[in-house]
Amino acid sequence: MEASVLYDRLDEELAVEDYADVDASANGLQVGSGAGAVDRVAVAVDGVQATFEAAADWDADAMVVHHGLSWGGIDRITGRTYDRVAALVENDIDLYAVHLPLDGHPQYGNAAGLADRLNLGNRAPFGRLGPVTVGQQGWLQQPASPAALHETLEDLLDHGGQGVRLLDFGPEEIESVAILTGSGTDWLDEAVAADVDAYVTGEPEGKLYHMAREAGVNVFLGGHYGTETFGVRALADLIAEWGPETAFLDEPTGL
Amino acid sequence: MEASVLYDRLDEELAVEDYADVDASANGLQVGSGAGAVDRVAVAVDGVQATFEAAADWDADAMVVHHGLSWGGIDRITGRTYDRVAALVENDIDLYAVHLPLDGHPQYGNAAGLADRLNLGNRAPFGRLGPVTVGQQGWLQQPASPAALHETLEDLLDHGGQGVRLLDFGPEEIESVAILTGSGTDWLDEAVAADVDAYVTGEPEGKLYHMAREAGVNVFLGGHYGTETFGVRALADLIAEWGPETAFLDEPTGL
Amino acid sequence: MEASVLYDRLDEELAVEDYADVDASANGLQVGSGAGAVDRVAVAVDGVQATFEAAADWDADAMVVHHGLSWGGIDRITGRTYDRVAALVENDIDLYAVHLPLDGHPQYGNAAGLADRLNLGNRAPFGRLGPVTVGQQGWLQQPASPAALHETLEDLLDHGGQGVRLLDFGPEEIESVAILTGSGTDWLDEAVAADVDAYVTGEPEGKLYHMAREAGVNVFLGGHYGTETFGVRALADLIAEWGPETAFLDEPTGL
Amino acid sequence: MEASVLYDRLDEELAVEDYADVDASANGLQVGSGAGAVDRVAVAVDGVQATFEAAADWDADAMVVHHGLSWGGIDRITGRTYDRVAALVENDIDLYAVHLPLDGHPQYGNAAGLADRLNLGNRAPFGRLGPVTVGQQGWLQQPASPAALHETLEDLLDHGGQGVRLLDFGPEEIESVAILTGSGTDWLDEAVAADVDAYVTGEPEGKLYHMAREAGVNVFLGGHYGTETFGVRALADLIAEWGPETAFLDEPTGL
Amino acid sequence: MEASVLYDRLDEELAVEDYADVDASANGLQVGSGAGAVDRVAVAVDGVQATFEAAADWDADAMVVHHGLSWGGIDRITGRTYDRVAALVENDIDLYAVHLPLDGHPQYGNAAGLADRLNLGNRAPFGRLGPVTVGQQGWLQQPASPAALHETLEDLLDHGGQGVRLLDFGPEEIESVAILTGSGTDWLDEAVAADVDAYVTGEPEGKLYHMAREAGVNVFLGGHYGTETFGVRALADLIAEWGPETAFLDEPTGL
Amino acid sequence: MEASVLYDRLDEELAVEDYADVDASANGLQVGSGAGAVDRVAVAVDGVQATFEAAADWDADAMVVHHGLSWGGIDRITGRTYDRVAALVENDIDLYAVHLPLDGHPQYGNAAGLADRLNLGNRAPFGRLGPVTVGQQGWLQQPASPAALHETLEDLLDHGGQGVRLLDFGPEEIESVAILTGSGTDWLDEAVAADVDAYVTGEPEGKLYHMAREAGVNVFLGGHYGTETFGVRALADLIAEWGPETAFLDEPTGL
Repeated sequence: MEASVLYDRLDEELAVEDYADVDASANGLQVGSGAGAVDRVAVAVDGVQATFEAAADWDADAMVVHHGLSWGGIDRITGRTYDRVAALVENDIDLYAVHLPLDGHPQYGNAAGLADRLNLGNRAPFGRLGPVTVGQQGWLQQPASPAALHETLEDLLDHGGQGVRLLDFGPEEIESVAILTGSGTDWLDEAVAADVDAYVTGEPEGKLYHMAREAGVNVFLGGHYGTETFGVRALADLIAEWGPETAFLDEPTGL
Repeated sequence: MEASVLYDRLDEELAVEDYADVDASANGLQVGSGAGAVDRVAVAVDGVQATFEAAADWDADAMVVHHGLSWGGIDRITGRTYDRVAALVENDIDLYAVHLPLDGHPQYGNAAGLADRLNLGNRAPFGRLGPVTVGQQGWLQQPASPAALHETLEDLLDHGGQGVRLLDFGPEEIESVAILTGSGTDWLDEAVAADVDAYVTGEPEGKLYHMAREAGVNVFLGGHYGTETFGVRALADLIAEWGPETAFLDEPTGL
Repeated sequence: MEASVLYDRLDEELAVEDYADVDASANGLQVGSGAGAVDRVAVAVDGVQATFEAAADWDADAMVVHHGLSWGGIDRITGRTYDRVAALVENDIDLYAVHLPLDGHPQYGNAAGLADRLNLGNRAPFGRLGPVTVGQQGWLQQPASPAALHETLEDLLDHGGQGVRLLDFGPEEIESVAILTGSGTDWLDEAVAADVDAYVTGEPEGKLYHMAREAGVNVFLGGHYGTETFGVRALADLIAEWGPETAFLDEPTGL
Repeated sequence: MEASVLYDRLDEELAVEDYADVDASANGLQVGSGAGAVDRVAVAVDGVQATFEAAADWDADAMVVHHGLSWGGIDRITGRTYDRVAALVENDIDLYAVHLPLDGHPQYGNAAGLADRLNLGNRAPFGRLGPVTVGQQGWLQQPASPAALHETLEDLLDHGGQGVRLLDFGPEEIESVAILTGSGTDWLDEAVAADVDAYVTGEPEGKLYHMAREAGVNVFLGGHYGTETFGVRALADLIAEWGPETAFLDEPTGL
Repeated sequence: MEASVLYDRLDEELAVEDYADVDASANGLQVGSGAGAVDRVAVAVDGVQATFEAAADWDADAMVVHHGLSWGGIDRITGRTYDRVAALVENDIDLYAVHLPLDGHPQYGNAAGLADRLNLGNRAPFGRLGPVTVGQQGWLQQPASPAALHETLEDLLDHGGQGVRLLDFGPEEIESVAILTGSGTDWLDEAVAADVDAYVTGEPEGKLYHMAREAGVNVFLGGHYGTETFGVRALADLIAEWGPETAFLDEPTGL
Repeated sequence: MEASVLYDRLDEELAVEDYADVDASANGLQVGSGAGAVDRVAVAVDGVQATFEAAADWDADAMVVHHGLSWGGIDRITGRTYDRVAALVENDIDLYAVHLPLDGHPQYGNAAGLADRLNLGNRAPFGRLGPVTVGQQGWLQQPASPAALHETLEDLLDHGGQGVRLLDFGPEEIESVAILTGSGTDWLDEAVAADVDAYVTGEPEGKLYHMAREAGVNVFLGGHYGTETFGVRALADLIAEWGPETAFLDEPTGL
């Protein structure tokens, strides 16, 4: 597959343009000539030394990641950034990054992937950010206790053995759930306003505790990595349909 | 003690003015008339409903907290903010907040308090933020293995039963340590440049994992709350010397 | 009436959302839980100690004011702001503020209210501010001399005995009039471009004198308060139609 | 006198450079070649058509004004601005403007001039604005009632027959006074914090009323023009000492 | 013709409003009363002393220029700006400036004028700048060598004897051409992405050399003035159709 | 020589820190690990494909350039930027860039280098930019005609056969000269205020013509490249004194 065709299709499928004003990440091709053919595409949550090396070992032509290298402009290609860029250049691997468009996508997104596995019904976009959304909400098929949903999430999320943290300040029966993967503190209030019984997010930011307690909502914290493998895995499947061979390079962090 | 005298002394002791340009928190008196006498001063890490109620139960005239209510301007005194402000107003409690000046203070600060308990020698300011610093660094009296320091920190930090997370990517013998309590991801690079063997901070932000791994440094994550009780406890002692009775209201969050 | 229903209806009737980008005032509920029922609603031009006390004496559940407490973010709830907020909290009164949307509203607005009393025909929006307008213009039913209109305005406006100031630099017969209540200096040029014979505004800002003189237009200065009682009085009538008892708390300032 | 020498001396005497970051006015020479000799210098509060014509009638070579034409950049030299600029160009009159440096100057300033006439003792700078001050404070030689000071101010200020407004919310005996000519609302709080008995300023801005009432301070409003003739008159005397003939062109506005 | 009618028509024909957010130039009437009748309109590329004097000699009532006097606000009407403004005021000449709207206009624009003379077919807008474009692209009727096109451009452009610079890094046969008059470095990448064989612009900015060389495109540099006479000459013809007599005042700079 | 030692010394010698707030260029090490030893250092004016390849051919370990790759943050390492970065990475060459500090340095700077060759006496810093300067001024040992200085400059400057452009609007005898290499339009006024007879700069920006003509000053335009080889050549000599072998890679552009 032509490299430029692959990147253009991803841009289009994921509506990358719509997120341009609200995402610090420079989404799209971040490193590489973007020329030539792409036969093997590795996907990973984080674009870092470990995944770049794994991609080189697997002989990838390109990588698609959720967290790339360019967040508001690279001032110097030195230190950690040099090592990462050099790993790509020396192994001739293009880096394509897609951040918020992959969090919020209703089909391929991180929140959508978890909502699918929770079998949430009556789904709706959640997590307003300017003109777009970066999460999902919906209803469990059967009400569940916080403890039961806790167990389910510990099974579903790639938490690297660190478990999922539950702040059980909400109702004892959970029917409605809002999901915002990664770092979701800023949307707890939207979840409360939407009157959900449970809010699932990733990073255990300190101020979440009293926000949840005062609002009376159950909060599940599955870790940034743990909640964000669904998107790139869905892209691996999508790209495979287009022709290239794909692989998911799993590097769980427990954070 | 005159309320206004108390607040002025705190402002001065903690060099609050020096942090005005770099701290989003409106440090100093945040809520209250600031008039009259103050006989009982409660301190807490977080200025929230739970600690305000505990302060009312204890009959406090004023509270001193690390995390207050005003971060860049309050647009509406509604919802969570209304409940918090009403708790203060109805119980006639002044709220004095001091954020970064308390993180970085070489004697009363959060990092200094932990450095004291670790008995670090050869201490120096760490954690540059514009014209000030918000952390501390120093040397253990005896080299320690990551596992041994891990155990020590689990004893010292108020982690609410959640433990301390260790990313053991650094040397097997730790001599030098940098501390930046609360949210320290942005200063990992300074710790690496300072060539320390271990970096102690609070919040387990997702991107820290690969930063630590690529830099080859040990990182200890004790939680935001867990690393930040030292400052307000030191202030309780200081204020008690000035006359008022003081109490530390502990509300560990495990985050 | 449910408090939340009242505030939502006011937001909608006054198109509060449309003014969000151009108004420094945080329009809508500014102080209060916004929960429970509202049976008695006081209205006032200014949200200040005097009107809050009058509202408490009258046993109000909520107040609707033109000038609230939040203009670009409250850094500290201390001093004057503490006293005002405490008066609301202690008397359990919600504060709903609506600034520019009430200046410009074609039916309930301050300018519209004065235009009604002047019986202006052929009315049109006046006072462009980005995508909205904050005033009104129209035609007298009968031409009037500046002196005659002066007398009429001194009767109509609540100037607290300070009178209305006339800068009679315009035509001796007035047919067309533009109105921008409160502080209108920035729109004198629009009035001149619209070729009106008289411009009615509130604050006697110093530079208006030569602007009017060089442009050859009659300017009437009725004071900020004097020109701005019409809006909240219209809201009192509107809210009364919805159920709650209402009262206008008049505190003329002569400024 | 060389024009360039005159302007350089004024820049220096009035410390114009020190106010560059806080004054919207482009202080210094605003219109003119700044070349040739200057024998006749007219001064006025406002740089407007009326004073430019009076200056031309008086055969001025240059004008020194408190309110010039350039406030943050002139986008178009059209309308009112064209007429004013053309009046200067056609009559070959340089325009030198000096705004805040003339409000705050301890000797030649507007506040200082009024303080002199009130015979205030124990004078100090008042009205902080970044690194500078724009007012004065001091003590009456004899305590005075608000009514007595009111009478004195009506005699001293050039209010164009409109009188001085007194908000008598303060003590019945006035000893200490703060003065900030022109538009002083933003410094009322500094006056209250300085615990003065009376605050004298110019513009009757609407929100001053309740601010003064709640703070319990006497406020005198003498009009923008009325409080600001002292500075340029002092400059006329100063320039006359340097050689050129000078004249004060009085155009009171009553605003 | 009424002056105001002329300026309104130009505003409309050139869609001046559409460029308001992206053009530093204050397009439209920049200097003058804009009143009275206009019988003689001079046009020029640059609004400077030389063209203002030529306009006065020719007895112009108004001038239309591509480069006016106001670029982001005039702080002081002194020095060079005073001399230019005085020349206009003293000769009673209005100055109307139109910058980017004249670069990009598909019929009257600078790029369009050159494209006409090159007889380019299949024309399309080029040179995106926010919501507008400021250039043109199209196809030669016959392929030409770089040398042949070089000769043609030296004939067509008003380069003041300085010639046109060719950077012949592109194909040896030129079919497609993009034009962005004046200063075009920022759009070279768009020309390359559009895969044109030649890019024609004005200013020989230093960094263009290696950009062109690495991209493999032919670049022609005809000078800022040399590429920008087409627009005002087209306006002269347009205005003449409306009634007034017109003249093009040529002051080639060779830059 | 240790790479890090070399870069630290250059930072220090050139006072790189002092220019941090005014230079868009990220001065210092821009690309590379900055580790290991540096035996061969190539210098060039422009950090581009051609000079990177020449450096690789010459077996350079590091390059020092005046124009680097990072100007306000690199959003994507793609296209031209990818090719340039890849050339450095693949050949293991560090890139050190130093822009304005090299323009203004009194000993090693571009302007100083030309001033040396013109043998200017009574030298002084020229070209204020915030707290620093980026040019030089001084006096010829013998007065020269514009034509004579023109000839001298055509000999001294590396103009790639394009010659030097003279705008001879100034005095016929030149004694004092100001130099600002590269792009100097913004400092012409400072040169005029300093009353120099000639101003030497690089880029022939269009608006310079009438600015020079109206100010009556001689302007010499030697091209961006032509005026800026002096600095890096001086650095090659300096670095050679420190140990490494050095080479100047000349790629004149005639622009």
